[in-house]
Amino acid sequence: MTEVRSAAVVGLGLIGGSVARELTAGGVRVLGYDRDSDTLRAALHEGGIHAALGPGLEGIEEAEAMVIAVPVSAAPAVLRQACPLLGGVRLVTDVGSTKGTIVAAAEALGIGERFIGSHPLAGDHRSGWEFSRLGLFQGTRAYLCPGPSTSEATLALARGFWTDLGARPEIFAPAEHDRRVAWTSHLPQTASTALALALDSERITSAELGAGGQAMTRLSGSSPEMWTGIALDNAAALSRAIEAMEESLGAFRIALERRDAERIRRFFAAGREWFADCGAEEGRA
Amino acid sequence: MTEVRSAAVVGLGLIGGSVARELTAGGVRVLGYDRDSDTLRAALHEGGIHAALGPGLEGIEEAEAMVIAVPVSAAPAVLRQACPLLGGVRLVTDVGSTKGTIVAAAEALGIGERFIGSHPLAGDHRSGWEFSRLGLFQGTRAYLCPGPSTSEATLALARGFWTDLGARPEIFAPAEHDRRVAWTSHLPQTASTALALALDSERITSAELGAGGQAMTRLSGSSPEMWTGIALDNAAALSRAIEAMEESLGAFRIALERRDAERIRRFFAAGREWFADCGAEEGRA
Repeated sequence: MTEVRSAAVVGLGLIGGSVARELTAGGVRVLGYDRDSDTLRAALHEGGIHAALGPGLEGIEEAEAMVIAVPVSAAPAVLRQACPLLGGVRLVTDVGSTKGTIVAAAEALGIGERFIGSHPLAGDHRSGWEFSRLGLFQGTRAYLCPGPSTSEATLALARGFWTDLGARPEIFAPAEHDRRVAWTSHLPQTASTALALALDSERITSAELGAGGQAMTRLSGSSPEMWTGIALDNAAALSRAIEAMEESLGAFRIALERRDAERIRRFFAAGREWFADCGAEEGRA
Repeated sequence: MTEVRSAAVVGLGLIGGSVARELTAGGVRVLGYDRDSDTLRAALHEGGIHAALGPGLEGIEEAEAMVIAVPVSAAPAVLRQACPLLGGVRLVTDVGSTKGTIVAAAEALGIGERFIGSHPLAGDHRSGWEFSRLGLFQGTRAYLCPGPSTSEATLALARGFWTDLGARPEIFAPAEHDRRVAWTSHLPQTASTALALALDSERITSAELGAGGQAMTRLSGSSPEMWTGIALDNAAALSRAIEAMEESLGAFRIALERRDAERIRRFFAAGREWFADCGAEEGRA
């Protein structure tokens, strides 16, 4: 960790906790905060952070970088709260799954120059400090979304920051980022939950599923608080993606009802073609 | 392998090939057949089977048990073809994902007494002899579906057969089996393919997905031939299950369009509740 000698991490869940652990392991002085006092105590006790920020984020001014790692619905308020305290903080970023709103909030607060949105594509259905760990970002993508005012220096700092944590930074405009993750991340999450609810309507439990069905319903265990914020923030793009999946399911159901063997075959064949074209087999351990 | 000293396996794909490998490893003499001559040669060469049946299944009469491991759409024809050759075969079974049609076919052919439908809940999206392996059935469920004429002796033989292969037999009536697997297996497969096709419509590849999305689209790589037969054979039950998932997706999409935070939260919360109630976390490595 060469670029930044101190950092403040607000929100010590799976992602924020893992950021804090990586930073402390890399020799960076880490100030942390979580509204859950047990989490904050555990982070201090386990040495994941060196000191706690005050309840009004007092102490942030001592850090060179600030990472907001709270649900996307809460992030703009944290940014607003931190704003007057930022002092010499050179890099302000977040880790949320949507980027349009938070980048716009930073611009509106007049801190756009040193702000850049981040979205590390790490984590699974589990949440909370107890699942945070070293190595979580190793080899994963970290989307970086600069706003109109983000400086080159801020972008360079953010690149170095995520690279040091093991991630591979990729740059996207916030709107393009949000449109893409509606498909690549928010739709799979929604499909997993919808499948779980369909199974629940028949009182079928996970234990009755095969390995494939269990893999498909695992994301249904994700944090409702986190996903409510993401879905609301990306509602328009996500609802288009859901519609595409409803259409695909509906067309297949009609083919089934008509016992249309050729259309049924084409459905499964097109799925396998996508899978094969992706080289999906090779890319998956 | 105490009960059966010889067995014929017709169809040497992932499931049939793994059955053959387990049986030969257990000291059973195995006669095999596959319409693909390369597969048949590989199975002989690798010692997965001891000898090949003739192209008209000649030689079956030497076996004590017969296992049909071809796609469900082809299984009744194989059963018909084998029927006049069964001689002293004491156990006739299959491994297909639907059971109503094949059990009815055995009854109609007058071999119901020694027939029982089997459905080992093993395998993944891969297919073919090259993925068959020892240990595939270890700890998995094997659904056994007797018909009206199935004898107690046949049921006992089938129980022993699958237990020896490492599976845990569970008995279901064919219709109840088919209704349940529409939800537990055929719906997850359909959802995975439908998700892959939705992503394909936006030209999104597997490489752009996170780990969760990749897990959700893996089943889309399954064999179209196999799944076309299963879907057709279980069309009514599967289409009801798909409808339930369409309703769940549609209701969520409408909540999104209305920015109805409370309904959105309830959707994700209900999914997580299902996941937690299932004890899903513990049951999954």
